[in-house]
Parts: sequence; C-alpha cells; structure tokens
Amino acid sequence: MEKNVIVGQSGGPTAAINSSLAGVYRTAKDRGAKKVFGMLHGIQGLLEERYIDLADHIKTELDAELLKRTPAAFLGSCRFKLPEIHEDREVYEKIFSILDKLEIEAFIYIGGNDSMDTIKKLSDYAIITGHPTRFVGCPKTIDNDLALTDHTPGYGSAAKYIGTSMKEIIRDSFCLEYNKGLVTIVEIMGRNAGWLTGAAALSKGEDCEGPDLIYLPELSFDIRKFGEKVQKLLGKKPSVVVAISEGIRTEEGKYVCELGNSVDFVDAFGHKQLSGTAAYLANYIAGELGCKTRAIELSTLQRSASHAASRVDILEAYQVGGAAVKAADEGDSGKMVVLQRLSDDPYQCGTEVKDVHKIANDEKLVPREWVNKEGTYVTNEFISYVRPLIQGDVSPVMVDGIPRHLYRPIELVRR
Amino acid sequence: MEKNVIVGQSGGPTAAINSSLAGVYRTAKDRGAKKVFGMLHGIQGLLEERYIDLADHIKTELDAELLKRTPAAFLGSCRFKLPEIHEDREVYEKIFSILDKLEIEAFIYIGGNDSMDTIKKLSDYAIITGHPTRFVGCPKTIDNDLALTDHTPGYGSAAKYIGTSMKEIIRDSFCLEYNKGLVTIVEIMGRNAGWLTGAAALSKGEDCEGPDLIYLPELSFDIRKFGEKVQKLLGKKPSVVVAISEGIRTEEGKYVCELGNSVDFVDAFGHKQLSGTAAYLANYIAGELGCKTRAIELSTLQRSASHAASRVDILEAYQVGGAAVKAADEGDSGKMVVLQRLSDDPYQCGTEVKDVHKIANDEKLVPREWVNKEGTYVTNEFISYVRPLIQGDVSPVMVDGIPRHLYRPIELVRR
Repeated sequence: MEKNVIVGQSGGPTAAINSSLAGVYRTAKDRGAKKVFGMLHGIQGLLEERYIDLADHIKTELDAELLKRTPAAFLGSCRFKLPEIHEDREVYEKIFSILDKLEIEAFIYIGGNDSMDTIKKLSDYAIITGHPTRFVGCPKTIDNDLALTDHTPGYGSAAKYIGTSMKEIIRDSFCLEYNKGLVTIVEIMGRNAGWLTGAAALSKGEDCEGPDLIYLPELSFDIRKFGEKVQKLLGKKPSVVVAISEGIRTEEGKYVCELGNSVDFVDAFGHKQLSGTAAYLANYIAGELGCKTRAIELSTLQRSASHAASRVDILEAYQVGGAAVKAADEGDSGKMVVLQRLSDDPYQCGTEVKDVHKIANDEKLVPREWVNKEGTYVTNEFISYVRPLIQGDVSPVMVDGIPRHLYRPIELVRR
Repeated sequence: MEKNVIVGQSGGPTAAINSSLAGVYRTAKDRGAKKVFGMLHGIQGLLEERYIDLADHIKTELDAELLKRTPAAFLGSCRFKLPEIHEDREVYEKIFSILDKLEIEAFIYIGGNDSMDTIKKLSDYAIITGHPTRFVGCPKTIDNDLALTDHTPGYGSAAKYIGTSMKEIIRDSFCLEYNKGLVTIVEIMGRNAGWLTGAAALSKGEDCEGPDLIYLPELSFDIRKFGEKVQKLLGKKPSVVVAISEGIRTEEGKYVCELGNSVDFVDAFGHKQLSGTAAYLANYIAGELGCKTRAIELSTLQRSASHAASRVDILEAYQVGGAAVKAADEGDSGKMVVLQRLSDDPYQCGTEVKDVHKIANDEKLVPREWVNKEGTYVTNEFISYVRPLIQGDVSPVMVDGIPRHLYRPIELVRR
C-alpha cells in the first residue's frame, strides 16, 4: 500500500464489529497505508464528508485492545442502501470525488447484506469508470444470516451471551413456587433467521435443564398448540422456560406480536415494532392457564454484551478485518471476506475471499433438518455447529469496577 | 457446636445468596456441626418437611466455589410471612417438632425483611417455650433496603451489572442516527427504593456520558415535566438514555405503568404487574415527540447475573453467612448479622450482630440529599457509597463456553 485506506461500519452493531475495525487498522498500517480514515455512520456519513483519522483515536496497542472490548460501532453505523447506478449517478460521483480527495486506495466496509450490496455497487462503478480504488467487504452480523460464510463475526458473542443469560434465567425461574406454576418467555433477536434463538439451547448441560421449548422464525407458529404444550409441561414441572424469536409468524404470515390489539406496539411512524412478542404470549398463557408468567426481552443487550464476548468471535472478527485489507492490497475488488470452517474437531477456521455479487441479498436461514420434528427445539447438529464459536473469554479491562471502552466523543448535534 | 444446623433462603434471589449459603455451610462444619440441613423453599418447605443434607451437594471445595458462582437460590426460596404466635400456635408447634426431630442447634435464615420477621417470631417462640435452638438472620436483597446494615449482600453485584449494562446500552444507542433522535428507557428493579436505579450512574466516566436522567421511586414522577426534559435534550443530542425504577409513581400515588389502558399489564389474578413502566413511557414519548424509542427491562437478569458478579459482594455474602453461624454458636438468638462500613478510603467493612426486633419491616430508602435538586440524577455521595461495593470480579468457571453452576436436580412436581 502507498496511499490511504478508508473503513466504515454499517447495519446493526455487534460486540465484535470494533474488533474488525481494529484488524483493518492494524493490517493497513502494517502494509504501508499512510492514513486510515474512518467514515462516521457509514456511507451516509461519508456523503456528508464526516470522517475521522483513526490515528487520532487508536494511538497505542492498549487503545486497540480496548477497541476490541468496546461494543456498538465505534465509527457509528447507518442503514442506507445505495441506489442503482443508473438511477442516481450523482451520488456515485460525489462518493468518488471524496475518495479522490482523500487519496483512497482501499475502501473497506464492515457490515451485513446491505453493506455487501454497497461494496458491489461501488466496485461496479469503479469498473465502469476505470477507477483504481479497491472495494472489499468485511462480514458482520449477530443474526448469522450472511450467505457463503460459515458464520459471521458478532454471532458467536451474541450466542454466548444468550446461552449464559438463558441459564441464569432458568435457575432464577425455579426459585419461587407458584400455585399454578411459572411460565417464562424469553424473546431473542432474529427477524427471519433462528440462529440466535437456537443458541438458547447452549444453556443445556449437566448442570442445567435448558429451555423447554425453542421457537425459530423459519417455522410457522401455532399459538394454540403452543398453549397446549405449555399446559402439558406445567402438569409435570413447576417452571417452564420458552425461548422465542422476535420474528415468529402465524401460518397466515402475521407476526405474533401483531395479534395483540394493544396500540403500544406501533411507533410514531406507524411502523410495526417487533417488540412485544414475549409480552403478548405471556399474556395469552396467563389468560389461558391462569399461571404466573414473565416476559423477558434480551433487547440490545444481546448485541452489545462485550463484557461477556466470545474469544473465538473477537479473534475471528479481527482476522477478517485484516484479511479484507490484505485482499484489497493484493488487487481484489468487489469481494467479501468469508470464514471457512476447515475442521470441527479440533475447530479450525480460516478466511477466504468471495465475489460479492454472489452474496448480497441472500439470507442464510437455519436448515429444517437442524430443528426437531415438532419444531420446538434445535438438534445436536445445530449445537455442534455453534459450540466452537462461543469458546474462550475476553476479559474486560476493569476500571473502578466497570469495563473500560475506547471512547469517541459524540458530536452533539442540533436538530 | 455439637448437633445440627439448618439453613434456609427466603425472598427474591440474588447473585450472592448462594455465597452466603456456602459461608454458613463452611463455618458450621468448621465449628463442629454434625449435619447441615438446607430447607427447600424456606420455611414454607420446612413445614412440609422438605429439606436436604447439604453434605450430599457440597462435597468438595470446588463445589463450594461453584456454589458461590451460582445464581438464584440453591435451596429454592419462598415469600411466606409467619402468622403472629397468638394467631396460630400450631404452625410454631409443627416447626419446632421438626427442629427437634432434626436435632437443630442453630437455625439460619438468609433473606430480606420478611425473613428477619421470621427469625424474630421463631426466636420469640423459643424464649416463650424455653427452647434452646438459636435463630439468626443473614441479610440478603438486591434492593439494599434493609435497615441497620450499611448495605445488603446481593446489591453490589446487581449494581455492577446495571452499571455495565447501562454503559453497553448507551454505546449502542449512539450507533444509528434517527431523523428525530432516539430515546431509550431502561427499567430497573426497586419498587420503593432507588438504590438499584441510582446505580445506573456507575456507567458514567471518562469513557461514557452516563444516562441523561435517572428517576428514583422515592420521588413523585411528573410525566409532563419528563417529556419536556427529554424534548430539550433531544434538541442537543441524537440519543437520550433514561434510567427509571419500576416503581415510579405520580403525585397522586399511582404507579406510572398503571396509567396505560392496556390490559397487557394485569396478570390472571388481577394483580397489577409492575412491568411495563418503560414500555408505557417509551410509547408516551414516541407519541409526544415523534422520535424513535426503545424500552429495555433488565428484568430478572439484574438479579441473576453471576457471570458479572462483584467480588466484594460475593466475599461479604460469604462472610455474613459464616458470621451468622458464629453468632448462633456463641449463644446469640433473635439477631441479624449486619455489615458495618469501617472506612471509605480504603474501603473496609466488617460484620456485627444486631437485635432483629429493631430491623424487621423497616425500609431503608435513598436519602433525599443523595438525589439532585430536580430529582433527575444521583449525587456524588451516592456514587461514592456504591462504588466500593462493585469492585473486583468473580471469574466464572467456564465449561464448553458457558459458566458452570452447582446444580440441584429440581423435583418434578405434579400439580
């Protein structure tokens, strides 16, 4: 490398997205990049010429270690899909003029499906216009739904958090005895893909029963059958714990949380918020069975729990960041780094580079054969798949009793 | 000690309640107790003669260490208030006949206010009837509302978890930019006392802004003023994070969550569940200001997060368990162990024994002078008070990527 690199983060944050950023920075510097810029709030921020020089923030190796232990997107993120090139050339001309001004040799984008779409479009435009900048994508998402990669950075830590929290929730649920029993419904992220919800099964072991039922969004949800199963379980045990995806839908395709008539679950723009699935089901069960219920939404905690991150996840996220820069430096463009599982036992994983045209917009769902026949639990194959991804810890750097993060003062913006 | 000890756990579970149990067991054995029994589900279970021999479960020192890292109540818990002696002598006769059968020399009860009431009544009955068994209470609650003790075991770990999670929530809240901003409302436990909610301030430091507003239940909540404050903040920053207690009430004394007309928040018995305060306020703000909102309930996670427990808390919980046995062995009865802060800098704390008649039913609330004038944040005195209680970590024993607990198979009960 001779000139500069620019990197951005896009889509929902994870506990590993900053580890990828640290990997990009390290490898870019090692390979001779003069400056490494970070676009603030992804491509949307870049269009407004909002960026920082990462050398002003990652000043020492300790800073890099803190960055790996910092949740959420250090550079800020965005949900922004570029228009098709023929629809709006001006946007592309603007982006490329900024890249020229900053002398960008390599553009690295850390994100999910929409981000790979951005890489695709920008690299296509570079080809059309004969522009030398290389565009490489770095995978990221807690949902684990990116095609062509064995798994995505961010998933392992979220899965570890879910397994750990489910275990604590289950232990807590057996403390007090209720006349008609207790049913706890735990709502987990994953609108379409059940990779996260299935991770609830990680709580099961020699020292924990695990959840009683797990409902993934890939299969249609029958609320009546659900009620019957819960009733049957309550006949045998004082506490029943159920893990559900926020995105479970009825046979007719309606989100379960939309079945409630409460206006509490529609936001000011009329957007249906998927929150409230657990609350709705808890209320349904309480009404049907007369038992005590509890609804727990893991919410953003499951994607920002750096204090409980998986070492395998953080290391792999760092590696894919570096691999993206390496690929760009070696001339690759319009590519995404993927993780390739080389073996299971022992677990070994390497990176590869794939054509981003093959990936974008293709969602990887949990295969039907990794869910049991009744659709109420995941199989041992699922658990074996995810188990290696949650191994090892990343001890937080504690300051005064609370984990330390790498901090970038937020612009206070007047609206 | 020459004969046997029995110990029970009562009230809501914490991340430290099992450390107290481990302390009781160790000291009882060291002081010569033959058997140490554990009543299952507190005094309620004892009345049904449900108990175990702890030697069958705490077989090694490793088991004791795992017990300290196990959340929820290992023996199970109950919410059961004994009747007055003159109201129902039979209950007392039954309990004491069981104690005689098991040759109980000391009865230790780990719990909050109701549990100290149990100790009071049983020790009074022993005095009336000239019975030799000694009754000593061991404090416990995440709410920190027990009188006469500087703080309660369980509080430090919950406070540490809340500070850690708030920090992660705040970082996450700045990732994506929304047109009209984002308001996140985090609901924290503590129906009457704001000790836990105030702990949200622990997230503030060199590397984090901390929450913008903190609303404790000790002060009446004005929803209109709240909306105005949030609106003003949104004019200056893209994300506003608010910590509220589940128990905040209006000037008229009505719980804020009851202001919603949704039937979702009443359980099958007509009991008003205090859940939903954050959801209600998020909905209110979305309606008033048109911004995006998010409601996060820390729920039972805040009381069962052993994976993130405070070392000071776990150690002190262990010490008070042992101190309770020591007191009983030395002839004390009708007493409770309390924690006494000997100095702040350096932090030093010891145990003392107090007359349980002075403690029971007296709730310790956050002093008004530890909250700012507007009632929207806690003072430095509050933070200095809680800071030493969250120091140090208790590394989980990881097995296959998930923390290991000490497990007692649950009786599968037919209802």
